[in-house]
Amino acid sequence: MIIPSIINRRSIRKFQNKPVPEKLVNEVIKAAQFAPTSRDNRLVEFVVVNNPETKKKIYEAAIPPQEFLLKAPVLVIPVTDPSKTNQPVQDISLATANIFLQAAELGLGTVWKNLKPPAAGEIKKILKIPEEYLIINIIPLGYPAETPDPHTDDYFQPDKIHPETW
Amino acid sequence: MIIPSIINRRSIRKFQNKPVPEKLVNEVIKAAQFAPTSRDNRLVEFVVVNNPETKKKIYEAAIPPQEFLLKAPVLVIPVTDPSKTNQPVQDISLATANIFLQAAELGLGTVWKNLKPPAAGEIKKILKIPEEYLIINIIPLGYPAETPDPHTDDYFQPDKIHPETW
Repeated sequence: MIIPSIINRRSIRKFQNKPVPEKLVNEVIKAAQFAPTSRDNRLVEFVVVNNPETKKKIYEAAIPPQEFLLKAPVLVIPVTDPSKTNQPVQDISLATANIFLQAAELGLGTVWKNLKPPAAGEIKKILKIPEEYLIINIIPLGYPAETPDPHTDDYFQPDKIHPETW
Repeated sequence: MIIPSIINRRSIRKFQNKPVPEKLVNEVIKAAQFAPTSRDNRLVEFVVVNNPETKKKIYEAAIPPQEFLLKAPVLVIPVTDPSKTNQPVQDISLATANIFLQAAELGLGTVWKNLKPPAAGEIKKILKIPEEYLIINIIPLGYPAETPDPHTDDYFQPDKIHPETW
């Protein structure tokens, strides 16, 4: 049986105006810290934004700006030090996957908001993240105000499984 | 409560000499296909190797060669087309995270075996994967022959959570 949160996780871009208890935010980040990292470096850190003014600045710096950056009660930004891991993008991605699934388990919605330069640099300045660190995404976190259907077997693509060779 | 498979997933490099039913391999890959992809491209494909001779060739091409590449009953290699997604590494990483967790749910072990050039290119040739496609890792899949401890709260690093700014 597929893990229920893998089935139920869908990208959520609309959030209820309802705070997320800090305990749940920490549980989601704990799950992220249980994800593997390159050579077990465990260097991914997390900025957690609740402040509406900071969210507004992030919204204005993002390309494109998206309303969920303002309206999600919490924004989580994973950060790592690319001078200390060989796979910074992979480390952040695996941590993010656990955030997605643990959030779904707790009834919370998420989406991968992608960041590239120059927006990533601007947002590092807003969050006082040192320039040499890497951010690649923002994860809004909140109670969903939309209910996309869970995944079903219709979403399974067995033709993308290649036995033995391509 | 943290999702049990997030708690129980640990990197496994020793495997029992016991086949993995194809049904379970497909379930693990189905879970990977339920992971998000950039702009919902859904382009990640999976080569599934059971053949011992192919595993031997992969083992010999890998840097460093690692015994689990020979001894794991199954090797899963995710593949994507970097000309059709803006985030190929992220797409493969998120699919891999779901593989890790769904495998743990089924009592199967996994690890991220990293691939870089020139080994990645050699392994694409062995698997007849077109040169323009991207592979970044191999995921061995099998019943564990080692039992590392599950994650506990000792593994949680609350000092890596930064409220509002770095």
